[in-house]
Amino acid sequence: MPSRTRPRVRVVPTVELLRLGHRAGRDPRLTTHLALVARAFGARRMYLNPPDPGLAERLAAVARRWGGSFEVVGAGDWRAVVRGFDGTVVHLTMYGIPLERAMRRIASARTVLVVVGGAKVPPQLYRMSGLNIAVGNQPHSEVGAVAVFLDRVLGRGPPVRFGGGQQRILPRARGKAVRTAPEGRRS
Amino acid sequence: MPSRTRPRVRVVPTVELLRLGHRAGRDPRLTTHLALVARAFGARRMYLNPPDPGLAERLAAVARRWGGSFEVVGAGDWRAVVRGFDGTVVHLTMYGIPLERAMRRIASARTVLVVVGGAKVPPQLYRMSGLNIAVGNQPHSEVGAVAVFLDRVLGRGPPVRFGGGQQRILPRARGKAVRTAPEGRRS
Repeated sequence: MPSRTRPRVRVVPTVELLRLGHRAGRDPRLTTHLALVARAFGARRMYLNPPDPGLAERLAAVARRWGGSFEVVGAGDWRAVVRGFDGTVVHLTMYGIPLERAMRRIASARTVLVVVGGAKVPPQLYRMSGLNIAVGNQPHSEVGAVAVFLDRVLGRGPPVRFGGGQQRILPRARGKAVRTAPEGRRS
Repeated sequence: MPSRTRPRVRVVPTVELLRLGHRAGRDPRLTTHLALVARAFGARRMYLNPPDPGLAERLAAVARRWGGSFEVVGAGDWRAVVRGFDGTVVHLTMYGIPLERAMRRIASARTVLVVVGGAKVPPQLYRMSGLNIAVGNQPHSEVGAVAVFLDRVLGRGPPVRFGGGQQRILPRARGKAVRTAPEGRRS
């Protein structure tokens, strides 16, 4: 008989992100923020359409320095990513149904692909997504929407681990403290 | 004697935002996303240093269209905003103590000023803040940090109201539905 005092482990889905309509010349910083948020809040990778090798390398450098295995993967054909995804596809849009109403379904999925558009979203995406979800039915930001989505879906699971980095922060009430791992002991 | 079935109302703080180090030529879109996130997740206003009247007007147009009374207020002297604030000053930084550890103190405050820096944060800010708080001790985005901060601090309170707008979204599982209020009945 299972012990009543055993802590309940909450299983959380594996989440990946697909960002559509990136314009390398125009939104490098916004897409960089999006990728950093995806990484920091526990997504496994971000597919980027169209591909941007410079941005992918910048994120790889962040992972080398701060740990974890998050990666940005160029996606020339976003429809192939959506069609080939084995899991629940969630399109974040201010026009969708509130996240609260879909939480149970999302949290019980094994794998989730979160899709966020750029300025213009292909109408096809609304049909291809299993769920069109709004993180608030107000205009705001794909960066904020992804952050809150991941925090709500993954944030109550086990803490996100960022092993293998060269540096980690020692949280402080004042100032900055960073520990640098000695060479060869980065795990 | 109070009824035991009366719903418990959770009092949430009033939150304002101060964004430092805005560069009107370089980060208009990031600061716009930040302001939109602040509005969508229930902040009352955003002080912007240095001031950017164009951005303030764009956000005023969003409030006219989508409701609510959120405003962007130019702040030539950010120290005066911090010093003159009657409440708890929270500086969001990846070097701070985890939000979880400070939640009780923040949630019980009457008013909160959330301060986010730009590329370079004046060291003075670390001393002037009552709390230096990290939304995850990883590098990410002030847009994501503010979204999650507001969602955690305000998200369990009464829903944010956006009255008085010209339009509102009717949430849909597929496609887009927007209701436009008739002239003269916008409340």
